[in-house]
Amino acid sequence: MANIFGNCIKLSIFGESHSDAIGVVLDGLPAGLPIDMENIQKEMARRAPGQNRFSTPRKESDIPKIVSGHFQGKTTGTPLCAFIENTNTRSKDYQPELLRPSHADYTAFMRYHGFSDYRGGGHFSGRLTAPLVFAGAILKPYLASQGIEIFAHIKSLGTEKDAVFDAVCPNIEVCRSIQNHELAVLDETIIPAYTKLIDNARENCDSVGGVIEALITNAPAGLGSPFFESVESRLSAMLFSIPAVKGVEFGTGFGITELLGSEANDAFCLEKGKIKTKTNHNGGINGGITNGMPLVFSVAVKPTPSISKPQKTVNIETQTEETIAIHGRHDPCIVPRAVCVIEAAAAIVMADLLLEAKTYAEPATKRD
Amino acid sequence: MANIFGNCIKLSIFGESHSDAIGVVLDGLPAGLPIDMENIQKEMARRAPGQNRFSTPRKESDIPKIVSGHFQGKTTGTPLCAFIENTNTRSKDYQPELLRPSHADYTAFMRYHGFSDYRGGGHFSGRLTAPLVFAGAILKPYLASQGIEIFAHIKSLGTEKDAVFDAVCPNIEVCRSIQNHELAVLDETIIPAYTKLIDNARENCDSVGGVIEALITNAPAGLGSPFFESVESRLSAMLFSIPAVKGVEFGTGFGITELLGSEANDAFCLEKGKIKTKTNHNGGINGGITNGMPLVFSVAVKPTPSISKPQKTVNIETQTEETIAIHGRHDPCIVPRAVCVIEAAAAIVMADLLLEAKTYAEPATKRD
Amino acid sequence: MANIFGNCIKLSIFGESHSDAIGVVLDGLPAGLPIDMENIQKEMARRAPGQNRFSTPRKESDIPKIVSGHFQGKTTGTPLCAFIENTNTRSKDYQPELLRPSHADYTAFMRYHGFSDYRGGGHFSGRLTAPLVFAGAILKPYLASQGIEIFAHIKSLGTEKDAVFDAVCPNIEVCRSIQNHELAVLDETIIPAYTKLIDNARENCDSVGGVIEALITNAPAGLGSPFFESVESRLSAMLFSIPAVKGVEFGTGFGITELLGSEANDAFCLEKGKIKTKTNHNGGINGGITNGMPLVFSVAVKPTPSISKPQKTVNIETQTEETIAIHGRHDPCIVPRAVCVIEAAAAIVMADLLLEAKTYAEPATKRD
Amino acid sequence: MANIFGNCIKLSIFGESHSDAIGVVLDGLPAGLPIDMENIQKEMARRAPGQNRFSTPRKESDIPKIVSGHFQGKTTGTPLCAFIENTNTRSKDYQPELLRPSHADYTAFMRYHGFSDYRGGGHFSGRLTAPLVFAGAILKPYLASQGIEIFAHIKSLGTEKDAVFDAVCPNIEVCRSIQNHELAVLDETIIPAYTKLIDNARENCDSVGGVIEALITNAPAGLGSPFFESVESRLSAMLFSIPAVKGVEFGTGFGITELLGSEANDAFCLEKGKIKTKTNHNGGINGGITNGMPLVFSVAVKPTPSISKPQKTVNIETQTEETIAIHGRHDPCIVPRAVCVIEAAAAIVMADLLLEAKTYAEPATKRD
Repeated sequence: MANIFGNCIKLSIFGESHSDAIGVVLDGLPAGLPIDMENIQKEMARRAPGQNRFSTPRKESDIPKIVSGHFQGKTTGTPLCAFIENTNTRSKDYQPELLRPSHADYTAFMRYHGFSDYRGGGHFSGRLTAPLVFAGAILKPYLASQGIEIFAHIKSLGTEKDAVFDAVCPNIEVCRSIQNHELAVLDETIIPAYTKLIDNARENCDSVGGVIEALITNAPAGLGSPFFESVESRLSAMLFSIPAVKGVEFGTGFGITELLGSEANDAFCLEKGKIKTKTNHNGGINGGITNGMPLVFSVAVKPTPSISKPQKTVNIETQTEETIAIHGRHDPCIVPRAVCVIEAAAAIVMADLLLEAKTYAEPATKRD
Repeated sequence: MANIFGNCIKLSIFGESHSDAIGVVLDGLPAGLPIDMENIQKEMARRAPGQNRFSTPRKESDIPKIVSGHFQGKTTGTPLCAFIENTNTRSKDYQPELLRPSHADYTAFMRYHGFSDYRGGGHFSGRLTAPLVFAGAILKPYLASQGIEIFAHIKSLGTEKDAVFDAVCPNIEVCRSIQNHELAVLDETIIPAYTKLIDNARENCDSVGGVIEALITNAPAGLGSPFFESVESRLSAMLFSIPAVKGVEFGTGFGITELLGSEANDAFCLEKGKIKTKTNHNGGINGGITNGMPLVFSVAVKPTPSISKPQKTVNIETQTEETIAIHGRHDPCIVPRAVCVIEAAAAIVMADLLLEAKTYAEPATKRD
Repeated sequence: MANIFGNCIKLSIFGESHSDAIGVVLDGLPAGLPIDMENIQKEMARRAPGQNRFSTPRKESDIPKIVSGHFQGKTTGTPLCAFIENTNTRSKDYQPELLRPSHADYTAFMRYHGFSDYRGGGHFSGRLTAPLVFAGAILKPYLASQGIEIFAHIKSLGTEKDAVFDAVCPNIEVCRSIQNHELAVLDETIIPAYTKLIDNARENCDSVGGVIEALITNAPAGLGSPFFESVESRLSAMLFSIPAVKGVEFGTGFGITELLGSEANDAFCLEKGKIKTKTNHNGGINGGITNGMPLVFSVAVKPTPSISKPQKTVNIETQTEETIAIHGRHDPCIVPRAVCVIEAAAAIVMADLLLEAKTYAEPATKRD
Repeated sequence: MANIFGNCIKLSIFGESHSDAIGVVLDGLPAGLPIDMENIQKEMARRAPGQNRFSTPRKESDIPKIVSGHFQGKTTGTPLCAFIENTNTRSKDYQPELLRPSHADYTAFMRYHGFSDYRGGGHFSGRLTAPLVFAGAILKPYLASQGIEIFAHIKSLGTEKDAVFDAVCPNIEVCRSIQNHELAVLDETIIPAYTKLIDNARENCDSVGGVIEALITNAPAGLGSPFFESVESRLSAMLFSIPAVKGVEFGTGFGITELLGSEANDAFCLEKGKIKTKTNHNGGINGGITNGMPLVFSVAVKPTPSISKPQKTVNIETQTEETIAIHGRHDPCIVPRAVCVIEAAAAIVMADLLLEAKTYAEPATKRD
């Protein structure tokens, strides 16, 4: 019922597109995690608007200000609150009575009995993913200190397709190179096709969507729980909280339904004395729990609903059908900016799972 | 961290495949809901094994015994606990040292430090979905009393495909007819193809998977919350708790990424003075909140991992590579039995969302 | 909103006085904890009715049956469900229309809109503390393996008073001897006075209450959290869930308000290189967090509301004032049986806090 | 494990005494509650330091800035974040190596592995009650709109005692007059004695504690739940989160243990057709649920631990015993400023319980 996520680390986000600020409270962070403001700023910049021609021209510096829970450059373990001011708001762009199709205008009106802040989508704005990216920027270095890295790329845009991660034995150097490209891809030869799609959409007052694939390396076997706290349940709950996400699949995902059991099963094998699987159709998760293989999942991101093409809609004040053309400043494609949001979302879940795993058994009771 | 789900209605499940019993505690149920044992038994029978040639020959009567939380045929509002005894267990079928590929044997071993009950998959058994079906059987009549119905069918099996729900204006009579068929389908002409796939799989000691599509009618606009408690987050968390589910998508799902914004957006219109959308690519959810259109989602169910074909695996005791052929009694395809599990899972989430919605605003503060 | 308690270990209780069974689900238990049925039975017997002249003649064997979450004598880490059958129910003793003063008859009626099971107090029955004692019997040995012991005694009965624990340097042998006495006291010379009070109450169709003092030894410093998850908040929430508890105080409790700061403050000192306090007015808790001193708290238990003396009340059916004399089988004093309930309640909280503490910091980040 | 409280309304607080700001996030507020900044400021001023001779001379304007969750003067229902800047910090007053007796210095060090912000007590500072008062100022008008009012007074200071609330039939005008007095008392003739106690303590570099009694009027019967979510559990968990609280009792509290059942039981009667009780020893709560009578509870507040009298302590750096005299700016008695904190704490719990109660039953299922 609340904008709070997590078991050991509780993440809470607040703010509206045009409120004074948006922000995040991180509670339950381990004490003593280093806070690297330079790295945080770098991550924030990956999501921030106005960086290049792929995104909205609304410029926001998106520099988070940490007001609590840190001391001498480290987390204290008490609630860490960070604010990001909203500086570049143009409320006059919005006509609240015209419901923007596939936006949350109508549902917000119904959910909040007409009291929601409609300016810029209010609390439903994609801007609320900035606090997620901030949280990810705090937690990724923690995960990295345990050997865990998270990568994501634009697997497809419209009908164009990038290469995919090697789910069994990923090339870490290649994974790390994704961020070197103007668009986050594994195979840079796809960049012109992706670019053209976005440019066409912008020119046509339209938008495009895509699929983001993510890979998490070195997660130890044994994280997560069966059923309601499965790793799939936890990750999907977080991923579906990101605006515009309409599908989540693990490993081969929907494709696994077209395989026979003998094809889909991931046979176990030994590699240098470690138990591995030969294939990874299950995306590193069996029975809701990590099996030590790379975690792999894909996320469907719908085309930006804000388009300036005229659309049919309803005027909620007059209760008449009208036409709307959304002007304001919008992304023809939010997929490029969503890549680091997906990474951050995954980092939040993984850090929580890692902490939880400490409570699964007493060292003294470990079976010989 | 726990097998507990829900905000207003807390659902907790317990048990192992070969423990004395499996069961469920439902806490926070509204007081005064009628308990119809005949209906419960009918729903349980839809999931129970040994009913027909599509499922495992392990027969379990699966008659739940309600031991608390009911009085004079109605819920009391205090925790309702129901047990289902495990009567037909054949533990000798299991060799715990051989890890069954794509099962939870290895991950359970790691998660529980070697202490888990490995017999029949223990707590990871598909049998644990019986308590979900029980919960659904308590809650579906409650939803029905509010006009809400939930339907599901086998959208595809392997590469064979059934018709799909009309997501804008579903024919309720057709939806209700699904249960009349031997397999849950919209178009009965697909039954022979589905049957053949399952029969082939059984004969070849193999298995097949499929996609289940679900439709929820008459959910009022305004349920759910933005971000972490989005309807998609809530439903997906529950759906991914069901063993073998590897993908969840809402509305057009992954397919929406191949549409332009102008195609994907669901234009608003007025129908008899009510706000509707002309299409329903978003599956009845905008910004994480129901918009009053039918809720539509699809779930990928992988092929049963238990196959008697020989598979490569590792012996965890001897740490050597070996071959396993899983005998025991198994389903060549669990998709038909999973249909009512998906319905129950959706019913649990919807009932919880309905109760929650009562706390969203004070009647006295409703905007004029 | 639910009968679920705890963060790492989730405890859920269910059942009514006259339902088929009462029981408990323990979720999040560490895997591999030994289950000692003999010890469990011994603890259950301490609370069970009909054991001696101090308690109700209703006899219940109260032998818990564990149906899940255990394997080969140890916890598996998956939800452990135990139930206790209700065998000795005499529902005809109850007239639901006459509200028993200071019982939950009226509040249950209002809370559950008339649907609650009123027989024997239903879910509000003191019998529901049996599942707590069971949980305590699972967790006390776990705590003991970490050096932590929990003791409780009847500090006062009516206006009669036992000795009190030495809160600074308790004599463990004396603490362990409490259970040797017919009534749980530190100073056995008070037993005749306590006995007389109970006997008088029984003879006069009346009842008496008392105060239970508890002591927890060897809890490490650093458990708990500031504010809402303070050790006091956690313990009191659990203790006030026990029927008849009307007050909880830590250390010197209400008495501390009559001291000056210079008297109330617990000066720090070193004892064999360990930081201790010279006094323990704060009951081992500063800022909501354990300081390594013994935890000490007291709990006020009101006189049993079930008395056979005639009392004024209201008939809720006829809405008239009437007189009630509660016959049935009741304790003239529940304090003796509540002692092990208080111990169990404390054990549940302490075990949860111990597990939580594992998530407070990364070993790698510990300050030098 | 987190600084988050509540079921329907989630309250989260953050900040340290000397961090940039302290604050609060209120999630799950009903949409449309009016926000009256003047009233908020008035409530904040009741707690703020430096107002009169009874409190610390540290002056903080304590004007909260609401940065989200409000629109056009009303709550939107999305997370409302407010922060209060820390402007008047004098960090040089603190010597972190000398553990202040009965403060959280030592426990914070142990809990947070040496990483906590020790300046001014950090997150453990009484300043963190300002966000509670803010939350209370948002929620009290909501409660008042339902007829519910909350009053508190200084029942005792040291060994001096004020009158007590009439728990059966309180005089609301007298209750409302409490705030007219310089110190919150029912009987103003006690003010000189209270004043003298505080003045003496200040002059002697010492401090005094007291008991605060609270009364909640017009809470409807049927709020709360049995066991873990009892009204006593909920209120006590919140009250014990307030620094310096060491005891909580409901109704006659510890005193009830000295009564016989026949004296302690609250007989039911009819008053103008409404069910009432003739006495109110149970403080308006039976079986954990409100019975419609006034809610009455008392809270023990220990003497301020910060005293400038020399005290024995340990230097945690050198591990030697030393003497400390706490200078800085401190209250000789925090009880006067705690009165509105207790009221706010109660308001938070009551508002949450009121919202929850909407989910207890379906109107359609109400028993005739």
